[in-house]
Amino acid sequence: MPREITAFSNPLIKRMRSLRDKKHRRAEGLFLAEGLRILTEAREAGHLPAYLFYARGNDTHPLAKALIAATEAAGGEVIATDDDILSKLSGKDNPGAVVGVYRELATDLARLDRTAAPIWLVAERLRDPGNLGTILRTADAVGAGGLILVDECVDPFSVEAVRASMGALFTIPIARAAWDDFHGWLRAGPGQLVGLALEGAVDYRAPDFAAPVFLLTGNEAQGLPPAYAAACDVRVKIPMLGKADSLNAAVATAVMAYTVLERVRPTD
Amino acid sequence: MPREITAFSNPLIKRMRSLRDKKHRRAEGLFLAEGLRILTEAREAGHLPAYLFYARGNDTHPLAKALIAATEAAGGEVIATDDDILSKLSGKDNPGAVVGVYRELATDLARLDRTAAPIWLVAERLRDPGNLGTILRTADAVGAGGLILVDECVDPFSVEAVRASMGALFTIPIARAAWDDFHGWLRAGPGQLVGLALEGAVDYRAPDFAAPVFLLTGNEAQGLPPAYAAACDVRVKIPMLGKADSLNAAVATAVMAYTVLERVRPTD
Repeated sequence: MPREITAFSNPLIKRMRSLRDKKHRRAEGLFLAEGLRILTEAREAGHLPAYLFYARGNDTHPLAKALIAATEAAGGEVIATDDDILSKLSGKDNPGAVVGVYRELATDLARLDRTAAPIWLVAERLRDPGNLGTILRTADAVGAGGLILVDECVDPFSVEAVRASMGALFTIPIARAAWDDFHGWLRAGPGQLVGLALEGAVDYRAPDFAAPVFLLTGNEAQGLPPAYAAACDVRVKIPMLGKADSLNAAVATAVMAYTVLERVRPTD
Repeated sequence: MPREITAFSNPLIKRMRSLRDKKHRRAEGLFLAEGLRILTEAREAGHLPAYLFYARGNDTHPLAKALIAATEAAGGEVIATDDDILSKLSGKDNPGAVVGVYRELATDLARLDRTAAPIWLVAERLRDPGNLGTILRTADAVGAGGLILVDECVDPFSVEAVRASMGALFTIPIARAAWDDFHGWLRAGPGQLVGLALEGAVDYRAPDFAAPVFLLTGNEAQGLPPAYAAACDVRVKIPMLGKADSLNAAVATAVMAYTVLERVRPTD
């Protein structure tokens, strides 16, 4: 039977709410996700929450019922609460029907099988959680093997990034690495490193792409450091015809990822 | 000489701050933009603020000096203030060096020259200001003639949308119209309506595109209403190979826009 909690002062609520801070997420190895759609996506990808919170009255939806049953069966704790507490947990005025608390999923480079997919996404010093979530969604859509976060990127397990990923966080392996470690790992096996760059770059449709392609996107404001761009096998740029001078980083990644996909994907 | 204001209670500050609300923006016909980069982009596109606020000490940057001089020369009001007031105006803890208040730029369909560009972006019931700003940036990058907002979309003049547009708000004409008005206007002249849809859609690279192409993207959660999709000349879908089932709306728009651009752009 679900436990009931309706007091903000409850220690479990306080503890879960603290997961909105990166420091606490790291210390606990847990993160928050919200909404039936994202939690169902997670369940379908084989991830059930350690704690599942739902607002009483919201347990009649078939997806909510399925989540509650699966979480209990897997030994997770299910907590009946109210909308105010769900808002408090998710930081949204209008929270979804459920909030789940999951164990962090990050993996490391050594555990990635680069031959498992023709395309991998790599982001360097990405700053915006919305961009990170959006890139995860794109990674899922193009069938990428994973997302590698190089150097100090925004936390992929923030509420904002999880929300923007619309569940792709649960389907796409995420590894974090310093540049030297990433580059060392990359060069120890097959892999074409394709950097989005402005200097010394060719049109994005020009190169001969060779799977596995590692598509590298730099920081939103600064782009790739020159040394990282120089280490790429190919530097590509997307034409910009307008007066402003850049595309959003997640958009540029997606335009490039679909272009690579067209070339490296086995024909149907 | 710039006027100095350092009191939160100053009526002009209160009035400008109220522009963070849509209701006040509509009533005043004014909106806020922040940061040297965006305001400089605006200036280069021929738009100067009616009011320019800068934090004392930030007027030594060459771009700030140029903005101050141009605003004064054009009869705008320049106000020296401090970081706390700039934060209050922009709603950001760490505001840019300048905040500008501009007259709203929205135009209407009758004033768009559809032959001026081979591609136009159209968004229907877009909800997220970040997506709207990102789509404006993409519109700028692909050389779109404008962005047409159909039915009830999020306000393009919100601080969040302006920020996400990185200045493209000032370079791309924006028109708002109800669906029937848009569709009537479209069919009164040349134009291929290409809808991002799931039902009855062909692969996004398959169609013969014919300029001017009007690329129609639907609501983030629901996509296009069936009647709108049915009114399109072509319905296209972007392959999604993953477990999650959708791309971000701004990303899908950009992948599609670059695909169209490749086909309809005169070769260099």
